[in-house]
Amino acid sequence: MPAHPFDPLSVHEFSIAREVILKEHPDDVVDFREIYLREPEKAPMKQFLEFEHTGKLTAETPRPPRLAKVQYDVIRPGKRFEYHEAAVDLQKESIKWHEIVDTACHANLTVWEFRTLIQACERSDMFHEAISKFELPENFKVIIEPWPYGGPDKGEENRRFFQGLCFAQDTSSGNEDSNFYAFPLPVIPVMDARTQEIVRIDRLATGGKGDGLEDQTYSKRIIDHCKVAEYDPLLIKDRIRQDLMPLNVVQPAGVSFKITDGHLIEWQKWRFRLGFNPREGATIHDVTYDGRQILYRLAMSEMTVPYADPRPPFPRKQAFDFGDGGLLECTNNLTLGCDCLGQIAYFSTNKLTRDGKCIESPNVVCLHEQDDGLLWKHVNWRTGKSVAVRNRLLIIQFAITLANYDYIFAVKFDLAGKISYEARATGIVSVVNIDPGKTSEYGNVVNPGILAQNHQHIFCLRIDPAIDGHNNSVLIEESHPADIDPKTNPSGNLYKVIQTSFPKSGAFKAAPHLNRIVKIINPSHHNPISGKPVAYKFAPPPTQLLLAHPDSTQANRALFAQNHVWITKYKDQELYAAGRFTLQSQRELDGVADAAARNESVDNEDIVIWATFGLTHNPRVEDFPVMPHESLQFSLTPADFFTENPAIDVPSERNLSSKQVIHGSKQGHGTGVNGSINEAANGDVPVNGTGSAGECCNGH
Amino acid sequence: MPAHPFDPLSVHEFSIAREVILKEHPDDVVDFREIYLREPEKAPMKQFLEFEHTGKLTAETPRPPRLAKVQYDVIRPGKRFEYHEAAVDLQKESIKWHEIVDTACHANLTVWEFRTLIQACERSDMFHEAISKFELPENFKVIIEPWPYGGPDKGEENRRFFQGLCFAQDTSSGNEDSNFYAFPLPVIPVMDARTQEIVRIDRLATGGKGDGLEDQTYSKRIIDHCKVAEYDPLLIKDRIRQDLMPLNVVQPAGVSFKITDGHLIEWQKWRFRLGFNPREGATIHDVTYDGRQILYRLAMSEMTVPYADPRPPFPRKQAFDFGDGGLLECTNNLTLGCDCLGQIAYFSTNKLTRDGKCIESPNVVCLHEQDDGLLWKHVNWRTGKSVAVRNRLLIIQFAITLANYDYIFAVKFDLAGKISYEARATGIVSVVNIDPGKTSEYGNVVNPGILAQNHQHIFCLRIDPAIDGHNNSVLIEESHPADIDPKTNPSGNLYKVIQTSFPKSGAFKAAPHLNRIVKIINPSHHNPISGKPVAYKFAPPPTQLLLAHPDSTQANRALFAQNHVWITKYKDQELYAAGRFTLQSQRELDGVADAAARNESVDNEDIVIWATFGLTHNPRVEDFPVMPHESLQFSLTPADFFTENPAIDVPSERNLSSKQVIHGSKQGHGTGVNGSINEAANGDVPVNGTGSAGECCNGH
Repeated sequence: MPAHPFDPLSVHEFSIAREVILKEHPDDVVDFREIYLREPEKAPMKQFLEFEHTGKLTAETPRPPRLAKVQYDVIRPGKRFEYHEAAVDLQKESIKWHEIVDTACHANLTVWEFRTLIQACERSDMFHEAISKFELPENFKVIIEPWPYGGPDKGEENRRFFQGLCFAQDTSSGNEDSNFYAFPLPVIPVMDARTQEIVRIDRLATGGKGDGLEDQTYSKRIIDHCKVAEYDPLLIKDRIRQDLMPLNVVQPAGVSFKITDGHLIEWQKWRFRLGFNPREGATIHDVTYDGRQILYRLAMSEMTVPYADPRPPFPRKQAFDFGDGGLLECTNNLTLGCDCLGQIAYFSTNKLTRDGKCIESPNVVCLHEQDDGLLWKHVNWRTGKSVAVRNRLLIIQFAITLANYDYIFAVKFDLAGKISYEARATGIVSVVNIDPGKTSEYGNVVNPGILAQNHQHIFCLRIDPAIDGHNNSVLIEESHPADIDPKTNPSGNLYKVIQTSFPKSGAFKAAPHLNRIVKIINPSHHNPISGKPVAYKFAPPPTQLLLAHPDSTQANRALFAQNHVWITKYKDQELYAAGRFTLQSQRELDGVADAAARNESVDNEDIVIWATFGLTHNPRVEDFPVMPHESLQFSLTPADFFTENPAIDVPSERNLSSKQVIHGSKQGHGTGVNGSINEAANGDVPVNGTGSAGECCNGH
Repeated sequence: MPAHPFDPLSVHEFSIAREVILKEHPDDVVDFREIYLREPEKAPMKQFLEFEHTGKLTAETPRPPRLAKVQYDVIRPGKRFEYHEAAVDLQKESIKWHEIVDTACHANLTVWEFRTLIQACERSDMFHEAISKFELPENFKVIIEPWPYGGPDKGEENRRFFQGLCFAQDTSSGNEDSNFYAFPLPVIPVMDARTQEIVRIDRLATGGKGDGLEDQTYSKRIIDHCKVAEYDPLLIKDRIRQDLMPLNVVQPAGVSFKITDGHLIEWQKWRFRLGFNPREGATIHDVTYDGRQILYRLAMSEMTVPYADPRPPFPRKQAFDFGDGGLLECTNNLTLGCDCLGQIAYFSTNKLTRDGKCIESPNVVCLHEQDDGLLWKHVNWRTGKSVAVRNRLLIIQFAITLANYDYIFAVKFDLAGKISYEARATGIVSVVNIDPGKTSEYGNVVNPGILAQNHQHIFCLRIDPAIDGHNNSVLIEESHPADIDPKTNPSGNLYKVIQTSFPKSGAFKAAPHLNRIVKIINPSHHNPISGKPVAYKFAPPPTQLLLAHPDSTQANRALFAQNHVWITKYKDQELYAAGRFTLQSQRELDGVADAAARNESVDNEDIVIWATFGLTHNPRVEDFPVMPHESLQFSLTPADFFTENPAIDVPSERNLSSKQVIHGSKQGHGTGVNGSINEAANGDVPVNGTGSAGECCNGH
């Protein structure tokens, strides 16, 4: 059987793509950036999936061409530089599509470019001269943290730049993981990525309230007022808690999911395919439940992190953590027993060396089941019979680290037809040096001498629905109070549920005060019981949108972040909310705003929903040295899609491994004494009620 | 050692209270409703806690008087009826406070009153005559579901009434748990609770769109168009899923919490006392972390469930599930292995028979630990060192069943100083009969012939803070865009964090578009690092508020449900958001609105915060026969309360019981084959990175 059209590229396909490109450039130097699956166009995929869903798939079934997307730099003789993108047909071993990208757009970055910045600093007299202005304590060394350059200043020539945030690390422990973020240095070297020369050193203000934007009157002993703040357990051994007992998740009969054909996952009536690419991370394809289509594709499309400190050059601190690239290089290789509990399946991927060699990146995605507490319960007070059913989640997880910040993403399927996408933000907040004793309106002092700047994290989730088929529409449902009226509302208790259709591509905001719900419906399929069109619904998370001024570069680069919901008509390859090229962009180009502006029909069409949600993060002292995660979750739930609670058939057996903790309490009689609380009683306690012993039922 | 002032009453204390009351009424009939701890006044408790917190507690420490609150009916000779409330001093065995409650207020209901309604129907010719109008299929019997009467109609004499929703149950299976809600009968008998006579039969409209409010033209064969919808696994045996594998939570070294003195709970630097009363369920007292005060008391104060069907008598469908009472009778007795996983500690309570006898109600509250996924993580991309720390929750849970609906409440403490209160709504939606083939704008047809009416669930959580002491203030913090200005915001990336104090008692709404955060601060304690007052913060859940018209009885009974946040000055015994008496109330009396109207200073005072949040529930077909829970969570998080991430010292050891699931995938190489997915590899996989094998660290 040939590869499934959604399967990631094999090692063999990688090398075909590489060879095809190299053949095109016999006399040029080629630096490869990324090679990954260019997903098939939807028209042929609809036909293919029709075969697959009806069980008619054979080796002869017509398949869309298998394509590799290749991103690479070409250095022509005479050092003339070009950035190319191509789609290689892997059967024909030929280039199907090719573009020399306009120099106004910048290829997304790679970690090898990050490394060149560090080398350039080491070579740069300008940099050494800047650093020499500081007197660092004994045993401290300088650390350079490469960052994307952000949005260029207005009128600035838009060359390819990288900037380096600088810190000092205490080397006395000999531990390379000593937390250098606690010792920021107020300089930022800027490198021209083409010449790989440091072209400028930006000097940072270190003032506080009332000091204005430019204040740079700091002393030579620039980090003497900063204080150690370690997080590596090897460096805080004596502080680690000893009284947190192990908690294990055990599945004696194995897991409930099935993985076949490499990436086909089946679990509790759910069926979908897992993909992974260096731009979006894990992608979910062709989601069905009990054979009915729900989603064509689900993936995180973009995230931007704009910082709110107005002092130059901080307005350029704005990352697009998916679009700026390097996500694959930043993807964590997950470790058993650390990132999940229980029985975990892992998926690996391939990454590329600069010369186009393919190496495996192990365990970039994990899959496991998780208990989710009670899903539904009812007690019949007449009989005392209780039926309690627990929820179970199937979780697809991956994690990325972008310099100081870490993000954990999870797609969750549950037993009641719900699909959720969770984003957890953790890691180390971005900090700068602040003078002793000062505070700032641009952030919070989270450790002596360091200011954690106010910022936002704004995500955009791309949802390509297929509710009982590819043609869907959107209804916006709100609940409104009603006037008192003797004929229609004599007692004033009525509220009206108002539905509005959304015929043309566009955007709108969340409105929780109206209980605004978005229903993705199939207008040609109706629920036999309610008579309403079958639907999946979501409540747009009513999080704060982008705060940067509409005329600012930050805002213009992230138009997607200025509405909660965008509805567009499907277009092949239109996957990125902030556009194809975000690195040093000045305006969101071919992103979701431009897609919506086409003003196309989205009524009974193949539509795409883009959901924007985020965090306004004004740091707490508790966010240092590593922040407890802030999390956001977006959920799609069935709304008259099924003809009953889809989890009504979930077993309600009692978990016989659970144990009762006996404690000294005379349980409510106020005559308690100390009791050995770790002594566990036999899990098999007597059961009241009328149910069989195997079930969850109790007296009432 | 005498009982702690927050300890629930002992059996002995119950009988003292009972005897004291009976002595007062030698010639009267006394029907007891509730006896429970009347919590001590705060002034003496502050002194007592000062002793306790400083370890100076002895048997001689002055204690506030130990009081029992007693609620009882008195029937005088000649059947003159009175409702009394008293506070009995349990040391002096005397009545400290006593009130004969005005007849305009109604005692909260008890289950024995519910039973009298069923008996009254059986005795009532009026009821039998009404039922005889229907022809029920063979083997169907009538079921009467007692309900509170709701808000009386305007001008109606406010006698004590109960109403009965009527259904038919298929008895052919012989299973008493066959779901009768699928067969609603359009009549509601109304009983006068004093005479225990059925005084009226309300006839319900069964029409649909356009049929108006009064339509009652239904056929005799009133449930022939309704359809069976069972949830009891014994009745759907053949449908139960067989492929969901067991998932066990095991704590081989026992639990991490400690229960002493009956109700004192200590876990991971947290320390608090657990209480339970028939009005609020579980109550949390004197919460400290690492010896620092955070909360004096936390409890769910009220919940109202107004229905939006304007047809009489449905405007009277509005329950106050805490205030209307009977919560204790409705509290589930939890069963090991059903309501939680792992090692569970249970707490029992005492309940009262009508004649004042005390009987134990076992396992009304449970306590256990739960894994909560990754709490914080950081990977140093230079060294590949990853430190990943998992979160753990300590969960206090109780569940209540109110006729058709079930609620699960959980207080959660975490490892990073967070306290959350979660409410899950499940059970069976309230349904009425609707004519064949019709649909309605008042709800959704969720099974043939039954209409699930639109409604809301609005909760009010009462938070009595003690942030580093009893005198606290509130700051409202918002994040606002800023104008572009060459001096202050040249690039337009600045946003302003604006804090407003809240000096006088009052209320306000959520504003997520402004990122409105409420900070409970101690104005006299400042964080040594940030210089800001120590605080706990919350984001008011921006859920839709009460939709009923402001002039409606529904709205006037629930003034608390018309703002998200109320701040009041602490007053002893002021615990109930909708007032002391909610049953058949016409206006919220001595509730949070009246408390706020006192316009007292809440600046550096002993303050109380009341948080309102809820669900607008327009039912889905998926909500029947039992609904997958809808849940809401409210969280309090430290904000500059600590001097670093309080979870920085949580161990990051790898969980060695986790197993890898081997699957056929060539992991991303697209050459997958079927694999035995239940075969588990050795959990102890090789570890990359620089950390010791015992830790969570991975390559990057």
